[in-house]
Amino acid sequence: MKLALAQNNYHLGNFNLNAQKIIANIEQAKSAGASLVILAHQSVSGAAPQDLLCSKAFMNQQQQAIQQIAQNCHGISCVVGVQNQNGDNAVLLLKNGQSTPLRLKEGYLASNNILLVNAQDIDDLSGAIKGGLTFALAAKPFEWDKHDQLYASLSQLAMNTQSSLVFVNQVGAQTDLVFEGAAKFFDEKGQLKKELKSFEEDFALIDLEEIQQAQPLQNKPASIAKIHDALVLGIKDFFQKLGLEKALVGLSGGIDSAVVCALACKALGKDRVLGVLMPSKYSTDHSVKDALDLANNLGCTHHIVPIEPATNAFETMLQGVFAGKAPDVTEENIQARCRAVVLMAISNKLGNVLLNTSNKSEAAVGYGTLYGDLCGALSVLGDVYKTQVYELARYINCEQELIPANTLSKAPSAELRPGQKDSDSLPEYDILDKLVYQHLEEGKDFEELLAAGFDEALVRRTLQMLTNAEFKRQQVGPILKVSKRSFGTDRKVPIVAKQVL
Amino acid sequence: MKLALAQNNYHLGNFNLNAQKIIANIEQAKSAGASLVILAHQSVSGAAPQDLLCSKAFMNQQQQAIQQIAQNCHGISCVVGVQNQNGDNAVLLLKNGQSTPLRLKEGYLASNNILLVNAQDIDDLSGAIKGGLTFALAAKPFEWDKHDQLYASLSQLAMNTQSSLVFVNQVGAQTDLVFEGAAKFFDEKGQLKKELKSFEEDFALIDLEEIQQAQPLQNKPASIAKIHDALVLGIKDFFQKLGLEKALVGLSGGIDSAVVCALACKALGKDRVLGVLMPSKYSTDHSVKDALDLANNLGCTHHIVPIEPATNAFETMLQGVFAGKAPDVTEENIQARCRAVVLMAISNKLGNVLLNTSNKSEAAVGYGTLYGDLCGALSVLGDVYKTQVYELARYINCEQELIPANTLSKAPSAELRPGQKDSDSLPEYDILDKLVYQHLEEGKDFEELLAAGFDEALVRRTLQMLTNAEFKRQQVGPILKVSKRSFGTDRKVPIVAKQVL
Repeated sequence: MKLALAQNNYHLGNFNLNAQKIIANIEQAKSAGASLVILAHQSVSGAAPQDLLCSKAFMNQQQQAIQQIAQNCHGISCVVGVQNQNGDNAVLLLKNGQSTPLRLKEGYLASNNILLVNAQDIDDLSGAIKGGLTFALAAKPFEWDKHDQLYASLSQLAMNTQSSLVFVNQVGAQTDLVFEGAAKFFDEKGQLKKELKSFEEDFALIDLEEIQQAQPLQNKPASIAKIHDALVLGIKDFFQKLGLEKALVGLSGGIDSAVVCALACKALGKDRVLGVLMPSKYSTDHSVKDALDLANNLGCTHHIVPIEPATNAFETMLQGVFAGKAPDVTEENIQARCRAVVLMAISNKLGNVLLNTSNKSEAAVGYGTLYGDLCGALSVLGDVYKTQVYELARYINCEQELIPANTLSKAPSAELRPGQKDSDSLPEYDILDKLVYQHLEEGKDFEELLAAGFDEALVRRTLQMLTNAEFKRQQVGPILKVSKRSFGTDRKVPIVAKQVL
Repeated sequence: MKLALAQNNYHLGNFNLNAQKIIANIEQAKSAGASLVILAHQSVSGAAPQDLLCSKAFMNQQQQAIQQIAQNCHGISCVVGVQNQNGDNAVLLLKNGQSTPLRLKEGYLASNNILLVNAQDIDDLSGAIKGGLTFALAAKPFEWDKHDQLYASLSQLAMNTQSSLVFVNQVGAQTDLVFEGAAKFFDEKGQLKKELKSFEEDFALIDLEEIQQAQPLQNKPASIAKIHDALVLGIKDFFQKLGLEKALVGLSGGIDSAVVCALACKALGKDRVLGVLMPSKYSTDHSVKDALDLANNLGCTHHIVPIEPATNAFETMLQGVFAGKAPDVTEENIQARCRAVVLMAISNKLGNVLLNTSNKSEAAVGYGTLYGDLCGALSVLGDVYKTQVYELARYINCEQELIPANTLSKAPSAELRPGQKDSDSLPEYDILDKLVYQHLEEGKDFEELLAAGFDEALVRRTLQMLTNAEFKRQQVGPILKVSKRSFGTDRKVPIVAKQVL
């Protein structure tokens, strides 16, 4: 008996497209002699519909699409996960033009956007495989720091139930969520016998007898390469699903904008990416050179728009209101906001969509200017710590120096005043990132962070900055989620709440 | 037997403050000979802790505060609603230094942030009142369009169960959520016998025998006055709970900024509000005069900062990049964004916190400039339709003309090009508001809107604008929620989703 694993990149709400992809899978599987097509959770609607579940039109079209797919199920069946109006999940068996719900297996994975059903509950399959067979249909976003745990859980489930396991997940990105795909077959000993592509559509046939003889495969662990591929797919799908043509990146000569620009070129092609350099009187020569080198290395177009005329204009305009007040962070923010005005003007005039270049370390401590460098339609690195941004840069450079060596080696600086360095205001990133990670992702509170060996004053100051920056984070665009706790998607904290240590 | 109804304005996460308020209630009730103090749901933590429920420190401090309050319960008891780590709700009876969970009554209200318990389950109260007594402990935000329905549900519950009903709700605002208070006593016929203040702290003793003899009171229905008071409290508590001193409003001479400025003066006092006029070459003389009249009427300080030097600077800076391109919406957005730079610079330098002045009608159709007039730490009118903004203005003016008559009578205009009117780009607001309300709040889809008599082309165009503007709405600050479906709090739609009609 042959099963088909269908791993598609669906577009949320595009029921025609999604149904067409599934019907093509069914035809292909049928031609190849398969009995059953296994589809990810939320395949018909696309993943994470949120409040679209309350839309009658949305639910009607989902129902129509299910019927259309079922009408293509003759001589072959199909299992698919579906979310209903009230948010309840179901697995449907589509067969002979009909759809029937299957009994869901409970368990740890079921609360994790992974629906489990027993193949034995499907007439044609009962007894098809020794020791049983479980289908795990998922709409589970990629999280680098839970990736290997998910693998272990699946393997463990197969072992514990002494049952083979077929895991089919969504692939593709829907705004902030990125899905890896990487459908898997585990035998009843929990050994991986087959794995589909990561971050790409794929389709595979599995002969349930032959697969038993196959050699076990190794898990491909979470790595910077996977984060890279997730971000590239995240950019690509955001543009494709929204019908957007070209991207825009402000290039400072620093590491964040360099990595975003390189990822955008990878995702969209260099001809669809425009870099804009906006030097001020505080920009160093090397910054301009580093940004130009980057654009030349990547081969993308660039413009240079110095911002001094605008910053001078605002200084003059505000002289009266600011009379007697010393320069402070205001003047630094004016620079960052003038750059945002330039970028958004270019975006409006030329149609290029602005990518946000801030990272998770900065977002955590509020090191960024609201309506300035925090602008952008999509935050590419907002769930990537600064130390990971360096890792990404080295990975991007592994075959060829795309990101200038000087960008990688110089000390990070916002260049908003002479000689400024990030380390003037912030702890060193290798310490900051560890502290924030242990607090956010691992849930360690004040006392536990002290027990973990962090300096008390540092912990106090960092947690205070984290609390104080909540208002900024709530006004940032969607962030491509790659960790188990992304600021955008996974963390809802009321701004007025008093800090509790 | 006497009950005390304690209606406090708690601060989320400020366990010391909240416990102090509750302990003061207990002392006051005890002195007055009451047997039981009834507190709203989430009284100990403050309302809507969201992900703070995952914080161990937060939960520990809640537990400590509960113990501290219980230790003050000798010779008197206390019932209070509490939310636990996993999000589950409980009602605790605090008595003799101990806390014991009470059995929750199920029902319609229980799924609505209102916890129900039977007074008969409390030893001292069983038999204290003929026909039984129900406590309804709420943390239910104010929603003008569900206000009267809530009243009817409470009255109905008393009638159906032939049981008196005590309803105690939170009062005060926590970021976007505003709570009305207005604690109530219904007799077993569902008649209102006692009501506490709206949008203010209050405390009342109810003698269970005497109250039976009291005359029934009328429901105070939802009204523009209640929306007004909700918004004023929303601003006031945002500033107070965050320790903010002064507010900043950009004054255009239009109705939205006038109403926001008047509400801010009411909430904070005129000395804590700064108005900034930022005329451009397209601003009409009457706009500047209207804005000046407003500031004079309200008595708040103002500055005038013309933006032409900045807009000219950007035009010059962008000449090269824009060569050969005709003027379009880009130049309009540059004006709006220059104003945001000015306002944020003043905010940074003087410490005044910027209030957003956009309304719900504009938010629905995306009529506003991202990083321009959509800026601000708190959106005051983001859940108020344009037609309601006019109602608010008339209400504000009912004793004295604070908002200039000309601001109320002239046609709405963004004044970003000569002779521009909102109605050039948008349907008339009285039609637009009805259409959007029926779609958002009443859930009518495309077909149902046509059946309701709206023009097909208008519906199609409006729903398309609504979908297209999702990316803007997701970058706006917190919106004071006053309706049952606020964009900020109550509606999560993925940006990349294909529109489904």
